Amino acid sequence: MARPGPLVPRTTDAETRASARDHDALRLWLRLLATTNLIEGGVRALLKREFATTLPRFDLMAQLERAPEGLKMGELSRRMMVTGGNVTGITDLLEREGLVTRLGDREDRRALRVRLTPAGRKAFRAMAEAHERWIIRGFAALTPAEMHALGDSLGRLKHHVRTFEGTRTP
Amino acid sequence: MARPGPLVPRTTDAETRASARDHDALRLWLRLLATTNLIEGGVRALLKREFATTLPRFDLMAQLERAPEGLKMGELSRRMMVTGGNVTGITDLLEREGLVTRLGDREDRRALRVRLTPAGRKAFRAMAEAHERWIIRGFAALTPAEMHALGDSLGRLKHHVRTFEGTRTP
Repeated sequence: MARPGPLVPRTTDAETRASARDHDALRLWLRLLATTNLIEGGVRALLKREFATTLPRFDLMAQLERAPEGLKMGELSRRMMVTGGNVTGITDLLEREGLVTRLGDREDRRALRVRLTPAGRKAFRAMAEAHERWIIRGFAALTPAEMHALGDSLGRLKHHVRTFEGTRTP
Repeated sequence: MARPGPLVPRTTDAETRASARDHDALRLWLRLLATTNLIEGGVRALLKREFATTLPRFDLMAQLERAPEGLKMGELSRRMMVTGGNVTGITDLLEREGLVTRLGDREDRRALRVRLTPAGRKAFRAMAEAHERWIIRGFAALTPAEMHALGDSLGRLKHHVRTFEGTRTP
């Protein structure tokens, strides 16, 4: 995996600190983690700069956008892709801003379903478009064939890790 | 990127919720994020199960292991690869357990360097070996050629995203 030349990162990150005796798989994992962190950091910066919002807020709204019937809080928590946000706290704030609404049995807060409001859907779409443009720009580094191969490798990796004895899907 | 068949994940995750109209790059990013999250979750479970420790603690010790001279707190924070841990709090706990030590100017806490103790180094190595075995087992899903191609694609992606106008390395 070690390759000198133009692909060597310009700045120090976790991967460049991986020592030479580390196994290839470990180096590859650190590269995977560093790449994901880098892209996630770029998305966080974009959301802050253009929408004064955070990635956990965006993530929460994205989960709701894909669930037109709404989601119970437990399910919403499970679906979140990023850490660093308190789901109940974010939902309370978004509700106060009129971007989400809680529907159902007010007596049993856990049974309430959270749903995007029309205003929330509109706000989310603007963010999602900017987010997608940024991601498309990022992945422009790869040809369609490389993207396909990358997706294929990641899919195989994901499937394999899921089948590990004793490993539960987090 | 959509491919039915054996690679389709068995359980619902962010990727399976990506709607059909999403662009390939977006689907690929969600797959990258989901795969990283899955492996990270597996590593968290391993560390908890076998060492009753957390990923931020492991991450912090890993950064120190690669810096025999020790690191100042600011540099240590910057090098951390995972979120969810308070660097000062973790360092305090590790110091109390005799696994790290602070060296230097006690008058200026920010100038103190944190370093692994011999006991810390020993404890870290046991964790690092188990971690590496787990990672090697995970990446056994891929052939050496696929691993090389994956590393190459991730390297190109990382380099490209870094060169974005306005994007700072997080």
